[in-house]
Amino acid sequence: MPELRKNPVVGRWVIISTERGKRPSDFQSEQVEEDSGFCPFCEGNEDKTPPEILAYRDSSTQANSPGWDLRVVSNKFPALRIEGEMEKAGVGMYDKMNGIGAHEVIIETPDHHKKFHMHSPNSLARVFEAYKSRLMDLNKDRRFKYILIFKNEGRRAGASLSHPHSQLIATPITPKRVREELEGAKTHYNYRDRCVFCDIIREELSQGYRVIFENDGFIAFCPFASRFPFEIWLLPKRHDPDFQSLNRDEMLGLSEAFIAIMAKLAAALNNPQYNFVLHTGPVRWPRMGYWVTLDYDYHWHIEIMPKLTHVAGFEWGSGFYINPTVPEEAAEFLREVEI
Amino acid sequence: MPELRKNPVVGRWVIISTERGKRPSDFQSEQVEEDSGFCPFCEGNEDKTPPEILAYRDSSTQANSPGWDLRVVSNKFPALRIEGEMEKAGVGMYDKMNGIGAHEVIIETPDHHKKFHMHSPNSLARVFEAYKSRLMDLNKDRRFKYILIFKNEGRRAGASLSHPHSQLIATPITPKRVREELEGAKTHYNYRDRCVFCDIIREELSQGYRVIFENDGFIAFCPFASRFPFEIWLLPKRHDPDFQSLNRDEMLGLSEAFIAIMAKLAAALNNPQYNFVLHTGPVRWPRMGYWVTLDYDYHWHIEIMPKLTHVAGFEWGSGFYINPTVPEEAAEFLREVEI
Repeated sequence: MPELRKNPVVGRWVIISTERGKRPSDFQSEQVEEDSGFCPFCEGNEDKTPPEILAYRDSSTQANSPGWDLRVVSNKFPALRIEGEMEKAGVGMYDKMNGIGAHEVIIETPDHHKKFHMHSPNSLARVFEAYKSRLMDLNKDRRFKYILIFKNEGRRAGASLSHPHSQLIATPITPKRVREELEGAKTHYNYRDRCVFCDIIREELSQGYRVIFENDGFIAFCPFASRFPFEIWLLPKRHDPDFQSLNRDEMLGLSEAFIAIMAKLAAALNNPQYNFVLHTGPVRWPRMGYWVTLDYDYHWHIEIMPKLTHVAGFEWGSGFYINPTVPEEAAEFLREVEI
Repeated sequence: MPELRKNPVVGRWVIISTERGKRPSDFQSEQVEEDSGFCPFCEGNEDKTPPEILAYRDSSTQANSPGWDLRVVSNKFPALRIEGEMEKAGVGMYDKMNGIGAHEVIIETPDHHKKFHMHSPNSLARVFEAYKSRLMDLNKDRRFKYILIFKNEGRRAGASLSHPHSQLIATPITPKRVREELEGAKTHYNYRDRCVFCDIIREELSQGYRVIFENDGFIAFCPFASRFPFEIWLLPKRHDPDFQSLNRDEMLGLSEAFIAIMAKLAAALNNPQYNFVLHTGPVRWPRMGYWVTLDYDYHWHIEIMPKLTHVAGFEWGSGFYINPTVPEEAAEFLREVEI
């Protein structure tokens, strides 16, 4: 059973993932894993994954068989386990809890080589529909505080399989990074009666230098204080704390924006490895028949982080980042890429 | 001139390092830099670095010429610049300041191949004497709030040169990670009248499972909530907020402990790439003729982080870490390595 353990100095929780079990001896030789040629996410290998939680497939086909456009399955080596009740305990001066959570894989397409920007807006919107559907379903589980959706593309970005997929992890704790954003948004709102992200959108549109792409509903830009070269934030212009409130038209607008920026990144930087994370509001609570959030001041968004530099001792030790590329120059470069 | 920019949501400062200047086009091809064979840190190439700030050298030799055991020089491509006064400014809704600071390189030895664990306790103590000397000198500069010393070993750990060296960056802001530790230590102290790190030392010695090495003055262990496989913390048993209060005997004890754990890591994991960071108290302030600290509750220490896994989207998005190796197993494995 995986375990959550708390750092007694700074209060950071860490997942000690016994199931993914790297024994100390696994690290002795250099880890050069080659693609074996076999892919458990390709069509025809449905029995090599845990059973489908959700699938968009031809209505004449059976679950866990070929004929699908998208599948969601449990992660075979989950960081957290879905079964069981929360148990908290002390170990001497330390705090831990058992590793309850959900860890799912969204297999975005049967096509092993279809990168994110190769989708049509319609087929990418299907991926976002799957995100929404899983968020709404897992929101009902009272053990979870937060659901993080993210994508690792390429080995340096932490991917162990190259078939296009995103992941979802539901945690019994609101993650530190998200909590900091929620608190920052609340502080700004309390002080100014405005959403900090809405203010950022206005500022970016007014300054203009860092904007990469814009359509009716969405804006993409290199943030003023980018941590990494070519870091990009993608935000809906309509204030909403929750990704899952997107309607079908908005999903198409999001897809159009996402495809444009990923195509620009791919063309400009030779298909860089990257991570993206979806920051949406925390799990809602039922109250008097409604699902309510206390985080109406939050504004969901997506952060895209190409892996172009190595994070080094200074960053680990300080939490400060050194970014060797001026965000305004990165944005200009991407704006000018023809796609 | 480099710039510090503040993220308006979470308040994190980022260094936009114009001097290290990666233009967008620098990333277009895969970055595979090979060692060119020429090393600016080797003996005889003293004119290829900025002039010495400090050197331990044969008294018959001249500055910036051969005959040294250790040199400290400015970083040729500094993340922050030493010249100038602090200037803060707003840009629309955003905050920035000019990138004042110090960025130095401690060239630990003339021997290009002498890794940390290959030192004798005497020669490694010389490296720590240099850290102390630079900390004491830079402490006098009223523009700085914090001085971080760290080491990147290997390319994945962010090193661009393989000659053994550590680095020092003095910042006009207390870094976020350090501030969190200072605040955590203060909260614990206010509540219990004890140092949280002293409590951790007692707990580790009492539980014993995670201890790797111990001598009279120092203890090394895999922390309870390790973020990474084989993460190691090295702490002095004597409570002190400041590294620079170490005396010569204590430096030898530190060297003995450091050599032991780095030799064990090298033997157990085939010379892994790693980062370490020295977390010491912030810059002190002169008051009524004394140098005082408000952080008497802090306890300096060193964190060693082998680079064995990739940090992925989940970690970036959540601030949560997934560690696939149980700290107790890592510690047992290292304890049993013969050196």
